[in-house]
Amino acid sequence: MAEDIKNEEMEQEPVTAEEPIQEAEEASPEKSELELANERADDFENKYLRAHAEMQNIQRRANEERQSLQRYRSQDLAKAILPSLDNLERALAVEGLTDDVKKGLEMVQESLLQALKEEGIEEVETDRFDHNFHMAVQTLPADDDHPADTLAEVLQKGYRLHERLLRPAMVIVYN
Amino acid sequence: MAEDIKNEEMEQEPVTAEEPIQEAEEASPEKSELELANERADDFENKYLRAHAEMQNIQRRANEERQSLQRYRSQDLAKAILPSLDNLERALAVEGLTDDVKKGLEMVQESLLQALKEEGIEEVETDRFDHNFHMAVQTLPADDDHPADTLAEVLQKGYRLHERLLRPAMVIVYN
Repeated sequence: MAEDIKNEEMEQEPVTAEEPIQEAEEASPEKSELELANERADDFENKYLRAHAEMQNIQRRANEERQSLQRYRSQDLAKAILPSLDNLERALAVEGLTDDVKKGLEMVQESLLQALKEEGIEEVETDRFDHNFHMAVQTLPADDDHPADTLAEVLQKGYRLHERLLRPAMVIVYN
Repeated sequence: MAEDIKNEEMEQEPVTAEEPIQEAEEASPEKSELELANERADDFENKYLRAHAEMQNIQRRANEERQSLQRYRSQDLAKAILPSLDNLERALAVEGLTDDVKKGLEMVQESLLQALKEEGIEEVETDRFDHNFHMAVQTLPADDDHPADTLAEVLQKGYRLHERLLRPAMVIVYN
């Protein structure tokens, strides 16, 4: 309790210290109309400069945000489309498809991949294990023929939008 | 030519009228330091108020633009996906598909339509001819059984993103 009061007193100190000066200023007969006008001018000049700077900041941020929205605008639709691509791949893997059906499925697949590519969405590369783009669902012991970090199998393709990962590739990796 | 000169003279008139006043102000010995300071203050107050108003405008426009970008963000990818949907429909129309293949194609179709729907893209309704959403590629004479503006056939589905048309439906209409 005693401490609380002490703190309060300390907090009030700067105010108390300023007060006499303010009073002196207000009461001062030397504070002429000219000085007051100049103060007003300085005050509005500062306000103007701050508003101007803030305006430029707002504009810059709005531009950055617009660019980011544009760059990643297709993210949600693309993510939602990935299961369709998986289904297409599974359908294409079915044995005994007639040539017509196979051709039809491939056309759908190609046109989907092309549409995604135009918006910056591409398959994740699977040359070598990369923890940024792959999820290792299983590991196999590395040996002379299969050095560590090479991939044994890609179980499900991964996709990225520009540099941003939409879905990691599911892989089996040697290590 | 004579008219041009007359116009020019008329346009200059207000300037000529103001000039003597401005000169008088500048030359006036009564223009005290106080007046100048007050003018400076008024000037910066105006500049500040304008900057502040402009700042609010910029912020408002940025918000509107952001909302619009969000609302129509999937437009380009969706448009690019429509041919895949057409291909799927054509594939499904092929005679003699095995049940497995048909089921696979329908799954792809449903998941694509679902993905599009989540982003606000839906088929254009085809209850009755609507020139905002349909393109009549052929007309048939209307009769008692087929009143004007009813549709005989939808040759290709149309799609819209919210209220915005992505592609009109191609229809044959009675009229």
